[in-house]
This record gives sequence, C-alpha cells and structure tokens, in this order.
Amino acid sequence: MDALRSHLATIQDLRHTAAVLEWDQETHMPEGSAEGRTHQISTVRRLAHELFASGETAQLLDSANARGELDEALILVTRRDLARATRLPADLVAEMAEATSRAKGVWAEARVQSDWSHFAPHLQRILDLSIQKADLLRPVLQEERGPDYTPEPADARYDALLDEYEHGASTADVAEVFRALRAELVPLVEHAASRPPVHDEPLYRYVPEGVQWELGLEVAQQFGYDFARGRQDLSAHPFTTSFGIDDVRITTRVDPNFFPTALYGTLHEAGHALYEQGIDPALARTPLADGTSLGIHESQSRLWENQVGRSRPFWRRHFADFQDRIGTWMDLTADDLWRATNRVQPSLIRVEADEITYHLHVLLRFTLEREMIAGRLDVADVPEAWNTGMQSLLGVTPETAGDGCLQDIHWSLGAIGYFPTYTLGTLISAQLWDAMAQDLGDMEAIIASGEYGAILGWLREHVHRFGRARSGAQILRDATGSDLDPGPWLDYARKKVHAVYGVDGDSWASSLDAMDG
Amino acid sequence: MDALRSHLATIQDLRHTAAVLEWDQETHMPEGSAEGRTHQISTVRRLAHELFASGETAQLLDSANARGELDEALILVTRRDLARATRLPADLVAEMAEATSRAKGVWAEARVQSDWSHFAPHLQRILDLSIQKADLLRPVLQEERGPDYTPEPADARYDALLDEYEHGASTADVAEVFRALRAELVPLVEHAASRPPVHDEPLYRYVPEGVQWELGLEVAQQFGYDFARGRQDLSAHPFTTSFGIDDVRITTRVDPNFFPTALYGTLHEAGHALYEQGIDPALARTPLADGTSLGIHESQSRLWENQVGRSRPFWRRHFADFQDRIGTWMDLTADDLWRATNRVQPSLIRVEADEITYHLHVLLRFTLEREMIAGRLDVADVPEAWNTGMQSLLGVTPETAGDGCLQDIHWSLGAIGYFPTYTLGTLISAQLWDAMAQDLGDMEAIIASGEYGAILGWLREHVHRFGRARSGAQILRDATGSDLDPGPWLDYARKKVHAVYGVDGDSWASSLDAMDG
Repeated sequence: MDALRSHLATIQDLRHTAAVLEWDQETHMPEGSAEGRTHQISTVRRLAHELFASGETAQLLDSANARGELDEALILVTRRDLARATRLPADLVAEMAEATSRAKGVWAEARVQSDWSHFAPHLQRILDLSIQKADLLRPVLQEERGPDYTPEPADARYDALLDEYEHGASTADVAEVFRALRAELVPLVEHAASRPPVHDEPLYRYVPEGVQWELGLEVAQQFGYDFARGRQDLSAHPFTTSFGIDDVRITTRVDPNFFPTALYGTLHEAGHALYEQGIDPALARTPLADGTSLGIHESQSRLWENQVGRSRPFWRRHFADFQDRIGTWMDLTADDLWRATNRVQPSLIRVEADEITYHLHVLLRFTLEREMIAGRLDVADVPEAWNTGMQSLLGVTPETAGDGCLQDIHWSLGAIGYFPTYTLGTLISAQLWDAMAQDLGDMEAIIASGEYGAILGWLREHVHRFGRARSGAQILRDATGSDLDPGPWLDYARKKVHAVYGVDGDSWASSLDAMDG
Repeated sequence: MDALRSHLATIQDLRHTAAVLEWDQETHMPEGSAEGRTHQISTVRRLAHELFASGETAQLLDSANARGELDEALILVTRRDLARATRLPADLVAEMAEATSRAKGVWAEARVQSDWSHFAPHLQRILDLSIQKADLLRPVLQEERGPDYTPEPADARYDALLDEYEHGASTADVAEVFRALRAELVPLVEHAASRPPVHDEPLYRYVPEGVQWELGLEVAQQFGYDFARGRQDLSAHPFTTSFGIDDVRITTRVDPNFFPTALYGTLHEAGHALYEQGIDPALARTPLADGTSLGIHESQSRLWENQVGRSRPFWRRHFADFQDRIGTWMDLTADDLWRATNRVQPSLIRVEADEITYHLHVLLRFTLEREMIAGRLDVADVPEAWNTGMQSLLGVTPETAGDGCLQDIHWSLGAIGYFPTYTLGTLISAQLWDAMAQDLGDMEAIIASGEYGAILGWLREHVHRFGRARSGAQILRDATGSDLDPGPWLDYARKKVHAVYGVDGDSWASSLDAMDG
C-alpha cells in the first residue's frame, strides 16, 4: 500500500506541476514563451500518463493491502482511472491531441469570420475520434454499471463521453432533466419578458478595476477562502486550479464598465476553490484529492455565486460597504442591485446569460452534441439547428455563426459531454441548499448576518472533505436523501423570477413581500 | 542525433519546469503551499536526473552522428555532464539533499541567534559529504584535463568542487588571482578611507516603491531586455531564472529608503537575463542553451550593473528623467548620485558591500572554504578565522556570528566552491569591457548617448550566442585575446576610486578632470 501511495504521489506531483505550468501560461507568462511552454506541458503530462498507465500501477494495485476505508477508496478510484487510461491506445490519444491542437486555432479564426465551413471539417475529425474513444470506453462502462445498464443504442456512445466528466451519469437521465427544465423555463422566461423590465443601468456604471478587485477578494475571504493557501490573479478566462489542497488558486477578469464580470467571477471561482481547499488533508498527494465530479464541482461554484451572492440578504448586507467604496452608487439601494443582478433577459451568448436563461443555452448545446454523436445530425447542419433551437427556446436568433454555434471553445478542445455538467451542478446546488436549510434553519438570516462559516461548515461536512473517496451520486444521496432532481432548482428559479418580476396581477410590492428571497 | 536531441529535449523541459516551480515558490506561492511544492520540485528534479543518468543517454550518445559543429558541442557537453551525473551514487545525492534540507532551516535559526555551534555539526556533515563527492569527481577532472593536470594534493578536492560552477578552473589559479587583488585592494580601500567621505545621504532618501519599480524596468528595457520574453517580479532575494531562451525572468526587491537595492538589483539581474535571452535559438531545448559558466554569467550582470550603471555618463544621461519622477532630488546633481553610488566603505555584510570591498568578502569566504576542504581549518574555528580575516582585510570585526561567518546561506545549501565565481565574473567583465572598447571606441560617449544596443550587440556576438557550445575559458580567450587576468579590473577599480575620492595631493576638481570615468 505504501509503494502504491508513493507511486501515485509521484504522478500527482507531475499533474500538479502541469497545472502550475498552465496557470502561469494563463496569468503571467510573457507572450514569447508560448512554444516552449507547450513543449513543457506536453512533456510533463506525457510522463504522468506513462507512469500511470505503465504496468507498475497495475502491479502495485494487485499487491496492495487496504488498511481501511480510505485505502479501499483509493484502490477503487485508481482502478477506475487505470481502466480508462489503459483502454485508449497512445496513437488515438496523440491523434486527438493533434486534432484539437489544430482545431483550437481554426475555431478562433472561424469564430471571428463567422465561417462554420472553416471549422466544420475539424469538428468532424474530432467527432470521429470521439466516437472511436467512446467505443473503446463503452465496455468499461458496461463492466462498471453491470447487467442493468442497457442504454438506448444511440446514446451508448454519448454515455461514455459524458462519463468522463460526470461519472455514472446517463444520457437518458440528463435528457429527462432537460425536458423538465424546458417545460418550466420557457414559460418562466416569457413571463419575465411580459413584466416591466428590471432597471439594469447600475450594472454598467464605471467602477475602478482596483476597487472591483478588492471587493471580490474581501467577499471571497468572508466566504472562507483561505488566502494562505490560495491567491487570485488576472486571466482572459476565469478558472480555478489546484496544485494540492494547500494551494488552490483562482483567476478573474475585470470590466470597469460591468462590475458583475469580476465580482461574480470571483465568487464563482471562490466556490470551486472552497471545495478543493476543503478536501480532507489525509487525501493529499493521492488521486482522491480532487473534486469528485464536474457536477458536484459546479454545484459549489453556483451555490456561492447565486444562492448566496445573488440573494437579497447578500446585497443588503454588503451594500453599504460597496457604496462607501464606489462613489457613484449613492443614488441606489441594495434592492436596486439585487434586482439588477437578477434580471432575466434572453441573449445570444451563454457566458453572458443570466441565471435562468443560461440553462436553455446548455440544453441546446447538449441536444446538438447528442444528435451528432448518435449520427442524427450532420456537422454541416449545425448552424441551422442552432438558430432554430435558439429561436424556439429563447426567442432570439444570432445574425452570425460567431454569435451562434461558434461561440464556445469546448468542441475544438474535444470536450464533448462536458456542457451538461454546468446545468447538473446548478440543480445539485439547489438540492444541497434545501438540505442545508433543513439543518441550519433560516438561510436568509444566516446570509444577512454574514455567518458564511455556517454554510461552509455544512458543505465541508457533507461535500468537500470526501474528495473523490465518494462518488458524486453518493454525496448527493447522503447529503440530501435523494438522487438528482430538478425540482428544488426549479422552485428556486420560479421564486426568484416572481420576486424580481412579480407574479401575474400582483403589484411589485406585494410580490416582493410574498416571495422574499 | 535526432533521437538524442529528442531525449535531451524532454530532460530540458523537466529542468525548465522545475525552474518554473521554484520561481513561483519565490514570487507568488501562498505560504501554506511550502510542503507540497517541495514534493513537486523534488519529483521533477528526480525524474530529470533519472532520465538523464539512465543508460539511454549513454546509448544515444554512442550511436549519434554529429552533423556539424553544434552537434559536436552538444555531444561533448552532454558527455561531460553525464560523466558527473553517473559518477555520484543516488545514495550520496539523497544524503546531500537531506543534509542541506535540514541545514538550511538550522542555518536560518543559527543566524538569528548568532549561534555558530548550532550550525557547526550540519556544516561538518555537508563538508564530509562534499569531500566524498569531490573524491568521486576527481578522476573525471583528471581524465578531462589530461596528464598536465597535477594539482597540489591539498587542493585537488576543492578543484573538483569549484569545477561544478566554473568548469576548468583551478584552485591554485584562483588563489593567485585573490593574492593579486588583496595586494591592490587593501591599500586602495585605505586610500579611500583617508579622503573626505562621499556624501551618501541621497542614497537614503525616500523613493516610492512604484517609482523605483518603473525606473528599473525602463532602464532594463533600454539596455535591451525583451519583456515579450521576460518579466520582473518581487522576491525576498533577487534572482534570474530561465524557462527557455524565450522566457527569462528576473526578480528584485525594493527598499523605499534605499533605492540602490531595487535599481542595481534590477540592472544586475537584467545583465544575467540579457545573456540568457541572447543565446542562439538553434540551441533551444538542448543542454547548450544555458550560461557556459557562473563566471561568464556574473561578468554579464556586473558589466551592466557597474561598468554601465555606476558610470558617470550613465548618471548624466538618466538623471534628469529620474529627477522629474523623484520629486525630492531637485537639490542634487547627476555627479552627486554618481559619487554616492560609488562610495567605498568597509562593512560587515557582503551583499551590502560596495563594488570594491565586495571582493575582500569573497576572498575571505574562498580562503576559509579552501582551508576547510584541505583539512587545515576546523569547523569550530571558523568564527575566529572569519573575524581575524575581516579585521585584517577590511579593518572591521563583526560583533556577532550572524553579522559574520553566518551571514550567507550558501554553505547550508552545500554550495562550496561557488563564492569565487562572483569575483571571477567581475574580473572577466573588465576584460570584456576593454576588448569592447577596442572595437567600439569611446565607451563613455556610447553610454552618454544611450546607445546600449552597441554594447548588447558586441556581447551577443562575442559571448551570449554561444551558450555552452563554447567553454568560458574559450569565450574569454576569443573575445579578449587573453586568459583570466585581474589587471583590467584592478585598473578600473583604481581609476574609479581615484575619480570618486581623488588621488593623494590632488584636489577634487583636478582628480575628476584627470580620471573621468
């Protein structure tokens, strides 16, 4: 067992090292260093893969004697990872790396030019390789899930891709969830559109970059993000990265004329970082010291960003301080900001979408991926399918592919099966929130008094500490008593929209009184 | 040859990766990450060593067919490195790593407490291991240097340690150089002390940290430091590090009440960085893409820091701009600053010493190292030897060991044989400067007009581009027509002291006119 742990520790060191190289690349690296850095990252990742996929890992697993629950989890998770790592031939991995490396550059050009046909052959290549990969991984899923696992043939491949990001999830279940979301959200968004618009001008007032930076950091610190074991830097796209439990870093970007970018970016990433910082130190330098699934990870970022950071008591608590430091907010109230940061507005770009319409973007992306992998949608037909989908879900149609199906980088990276986890995480966040409220009582009062430690403590106890030693499904079940369920989040969304926009026939005031939250 | 290059490229990637981890450790890393980072660095360095010292390198060397001068140099240098890497058993390397890891912490405590006896057993252990190492490396030196190499037996071990930092150097030659320096410098320092003191109050005026930061960066940029392939960060101890020719970074520290720390720190490190940035891109990702010796490296930092940055024309050129940005310098002249930054003042701490007395500190450290390795000085007697030496060389005696023999970290790191390269580099800088003046003409006029590109161009041509493809001795000989020679620097030092302090019987004014420079 010690030999296994030492072998895995070396591999974890290399993975964390690659993460340091990547972090530097996105934050501080001088532009001229791009080529050299690509070599370094690829060398370190290759060595980590070779060490892990080598016969040594299998041998050490076979001869390891587990001395307790933690050792058992370590062996289980390592076997699961190894089954995947050894299943894919080096040639396929190299072909995918080459295809995505090319596709990434082509995608960036195609987006600027809004030229789908430029990107299409590269996506086709990535799809072909993804299908090969899925077919190689399907037996692993079958083995793990047992004889009861009998997916629709058309979805078996997507299951294998989805499983990379959300272990144990099934395409059919995800599709069912999205059906439920669609049925509720489309009318909810229409309802918001039928009401007087929210006054969102405060969002666009100039706030100096330094002030934005400080506000975000201070709130993150109040949430419990430990800056002795983390830090924040600037990057073009916000992300969280872990170099170990004691070094979890976030990044943000700052738009002086749209403060939610930095503030909610920081709170979102801080939510991810609180998860990684909260993993039991006993798991350090093992593959268990990581988020258990992307869904659980996203539930943590969404919870702090939305359930906390977009709540009315949050704004009431922090507003006076913000106002003191942002001279131009003197004519505003806490409720003005609460309402503005909760406006619902169909729009074209996912990453700029509000909390509610966001999931209709994800739904569309998931649907198209699933159809392409199932062979029911040709790559050439994606732009039309995208535009039709946007119109029917959100009532808007992009004028160009750059603002449409070309807006997101993920496909060019080969990340097919990734998108649904954004929404799964959101649904989980609401389930966890309701379970937390059962234990802690009045969540509004907790936020109003800034007792974020109570929230963090509950999450540490029920989610964070386990790392990968428990599966996402297990954590959800143990913490909430139920499996994935869109109900709690739909309740939350409905209440939020009604609170901000009023319900039919109600006046503003009475709706706010009735639906405080 | 391609297989050899590819193998060595992987190893270089790992070494550069370790350098990134170390850079982050000193600049941005949160304190809580110390333990995890130690693991990561040690894993990456260990894998790089294992890959290099493996039989594969030897096999690839044996079957490689050099296709030109560069390939030949690559094979030669790789063989030389491999002879050393394979000579030291893994146990010894591990014991040294453990001994220094402990010694580093103990040294820090001992220095604060000024308690030599606390550190002494750790130094003894490091000396014992260094002697073992030296004895293992001596046959390599003998093989490389041939039958004419017949060192004094007492110096053979120190030769092997010195060779790690300054390939090909001999203890006897270094001792001879220091004898010459001592004979000239002790009276020169006494001469300065006998003259009216330099008005150094301007050095201690408050200059805001941001202003200091910008001034250093701008001068470094004017010297030719390419910030598209580099950057500057803050760290407790300034250093330069390379992650490849296209990513060479420096650090500095800033004392708001003593601007030379940051300004000359930046210019010194920029000199190192200009060297690494100037290596021929054809050497990228090979072990040739590095400084050829510490002496040559230090010659580059000293040249930009002192020959350029402490010259009178430098101050005359930049002073008006500095004055504009430092409001409190209005009563000063360029010559006030030139003189203040060239004061000569015996002092206790090496890193705070002036350009002239600095080398007497190094001389003492070299002498004690040599005596300890030769078995003529006991560890217990070092404090007394230190104090006696300081008194006889500089006329000052530390009151505590913390300000005396415990002041420097190097011994605790196992870096024995390192110190002399500080002085060798200084001597080389003056030899290069004189050779440059032969080619370029009036160096004062060049500095006065800010034509730093001419200086950089000459150094690129005669020093930088070769990397390790030529030895330090070869570069020196090709560039200057002579071997290591303290004469040029002693001339420079004498002229500088006389210019700043006047010569006996001369008035200030006539001495300045006579010795402009």
